[in-house]
Amino acid sequence: MQSSPIRRLIPYSEEAKEKGVEVLHLNIGQPDIETPKAFFKSIEKRAGKVIPYSHSAGIKELRQAFSKYYKSWGFEVSPEEMLITNGGSEAIIFSLGTVADPGDEVVVLEPFYANYRSFAGMLNLQLLPVTTDPEAGYKVPDLSEYDDKMTAKTKAIVFSNPCNPTGAVYPKEDIKRILEFAKKHDLYVIIDEVYREFVFDGLEPFSGMEFTDYHDRLIMVDSVSKRFSACGARVGVMATKNKDILEQAMKMAQARLSPPTVSQLGTIGFLEMDPNYLIEVREEYQKRRDIVYEELSKVEGLYFKKPKGAFYVSVKLPVDNSEKFVKWMLQEFSVNNTTTMVAPLDGFYATPGRGLQEIRIAYVLEEEKLKQACEILRKGLEEYRRKAA
Amino acid sequence: MQSSPIRRLIPYSEEAKEKGVEVLHLNIGQPDIETPKAFFKSIEKRAGKVIPYSHSAGIKELRQAFSKYYKSWGFEVSPEEMLITNGGSEAIIFSLGTVADPGDEVVVLEPFYANYRSFAGMLNLQLLPVTTDPEAGYKVPDLSEYDDKMTAKTKAIVFSNPCNPTGAVYPKEDIKRILEFAKKHDLYVIIDEVYREFVFDGLEPFSGMEFTDYHDRLIMVDSVSKRFSACGARVGVMATKNKDILEQAMKMAQARLSPPTVSQLGTIGFLEMDPNYLIEVREEYQKRRDIVYEELSKVEGLYFKKPKGAFYVSVKLPVDNSEKFVKWMLQEFSVNNTTTMVAPLDGFYATPGRGLQEIRIAYVLEEEKLKQACEILRKGLEEYRRKAA
Repeated sequence: MQSSPIRRLIPYSEEAKEKGVEVLHLNIGQPDIETPKAFFKSIEKRAGKVIPYSHSAGIKELRQAFSKYYKSWGFEVSPEEMLITNGGSEAIIFSLGTVADPGDEVVVLEPFYANYRSFAGMLNLQLLPVTTDPEAGYKVPDLSEYDDKMTAKTKAIVFSNPCNPTGAVYPKEDIKRILEFAKKHDLYVIIDEVYREFVFDGLEPFSGMEFTDYHDRLIMVDSVSKRFSACGARVGVMATKNKDILEQAMKMAQARLSPPTVSQLGTIGFLEMDPNYLIEVREEYQKRRDIVYEELSKVEGLYFKKPKGAFYVSVKLPVDNSEKFVKWMLQEFSVNNTTTMVAPLDGFYATPGRGLQEIRIAYVLEEEKLKQACEILRKGLEEYRRKAA
Repeated sequence: MQSSPIRRLIPYSEEAKEKGVEVLHLNIGQPDIETPKAFFKSIEKRAGKVIPYSHSAGIKELRQAFSKYYKSWGFEVSPEEMLITNGGSEAIIFSLGTVADPGDEVVVLEPFYANYRSFAGMLNLQLLPVTTDPEAGYKVPDLSEYDDKMTAKTKAIVFSNPCNPTGAVYPKEDIKRILEFAKKHDLYVIIDEVYREFVFDGLEPFSGMEFTDYHDRLIMVDSVSKRFSACGARVGVMATKNKDILEQAMKMAQARLSPPTVSQLGTIGFLEMDPNYLIEVREEYQKRRDIVYEELSKVEGLYFKKPKGAFYVSVKLPVDNSEKFVKWMLQEFSVNNTTTMVAPLDGFYATPGRGLQEIRIAYVLEEEKLKQACEILRKGLEEYRRKAA
């Protein structure tokens, strides 16, 4: 197993902090938006005298609340069609672990959320990358090119939409193409929708679960981490209308007994909130997206497109090795004793050698900090290139 | 993967409840003791505006609190020698996943905590059982009998002490024998100590970590679930002084990002409590142990020994198949519209055919309920045998 490419550089940021340098974190999807108080109020209201295990599939009232929430966004998932998980992470592990056996292959749109590789490693699965190209705006390519690569061991295709790390939003017709490809090769389709509501420029959020003709092969992964700025709650969802899949996943769920009860109680509070809350959050991220776009546009030699969703943008830098650059920023560069940390993108690819020049920026800080972070990044890049020249 | 033998009968208890029957749960280690308020107070005191991911190894202040807690019990684990996990469950998964590769074997003292089998299934490991015998008080047998069974693929030995499901407490000399056996065959030793403080009749709690000569091969698993009646917090510990092991486990920890932050904040509150709290809890369980022992002694045809720790007792019933009996109790038997649920023990064995007549009783209910549950069990057993005769 590899170290998490998002987290393995943390020792360098810790060192910087020990030296008294402030580190602006654009490397990890940890928003600075205040967690709604509804979380704690719901715990206060609902917690009994004992904090017991919950049902392995999660507290029923919470599953009902998710079901209602999904309905409000226009698709149907009943409380019996989902498992509450330890964050989206465990939902991915359960999904992959259920549809594939050790030694099997899983198709993944790359660049992908880096931990897919770690989960595949844990389960001894091979990743089979379908590359989306920055120059094509990370569009889903013509999948017929991959027909010949599918074998009896290829069991599923997994991707996030909106996409972490690119910020791309795959339109419905692309999801349809993926589903058709999956049907042709008898694959399960795992769609990670933890950023579902974060789409910009008037786009409407939608779920893969709306494709009811494909329900038997569809698994949806969800999480409250980003949506309600509650990454530390560790509450996610694995949803599918395929009963066999859910039954298999339930065995894994039973083995680990239950997701965190207190966080589940809090999450009911999130789901009872006024839906306008999420519209405001979306507006806030769109504003931040605009800032990052504007700031990055000032930097020479970058390659990137305006992202349409999530809160990430992938950027190709004019450097040989972005990881070296990220380390250098932490170890040797600062402006007024402040530096910026981003994530190198090679760990988000399965194709060797891909992503070496790219980084992922998470625009999770408020306006002023974000501007400052981008400016430091720009200055750092200038100095780094000057030194290299 | 098998269904959890503790949880797979839940649909039958749900059915019983739907029919209006009260079910007294002695089947699962879910105590009825009130969770100390220190948990919620600590959350209130420590939670910031955002509920962020924590460090993948867990919040530093929590690791420091555990370190201090362990020191108060007479052994040393530094904050850098542990990972905070999603309950003891994840600590076991990380431990097994780190020391063994798919296809490897793990020695396990049987009967064992049933989910070890599920975790081994998830990781594609084979369990190699060393049987402890009810007639010998579940004592650790002479391990030299197993010398010939160890192969290059045998990587570790795992057991809980005090033992779930038997309630046996292995004395220090037995742990020493296990460690010597492990040394001879170059195995890692994973000791699950989630019931460490629950030992009766004047026994003193101790940890395998006290065997400092074996530190390189020792992994300790811990949890606050039972100790502080907080099963739903999902806070556990994987501890080892072997840096390579911890580094490997850290990769799995990074992949799933972080344990639940809110529960971690609450747990600091547990660890700051007056140590007398645990002495009172131990006394409560000893009292319950005595009640169960007395009540079961009234029943004809049972085979069991007085347990010395944890809050379980394994009992051999005068029936052919204990699972059938458990189902029958839920479906067909009640006294004043109340019935008792226990766990069949065959799922706690790796040796096929073992445990078919045994059950595990968890004495997790208060005195009156416990007496009632035992009486219903006794009456049920009488009627079941009468019908079978």
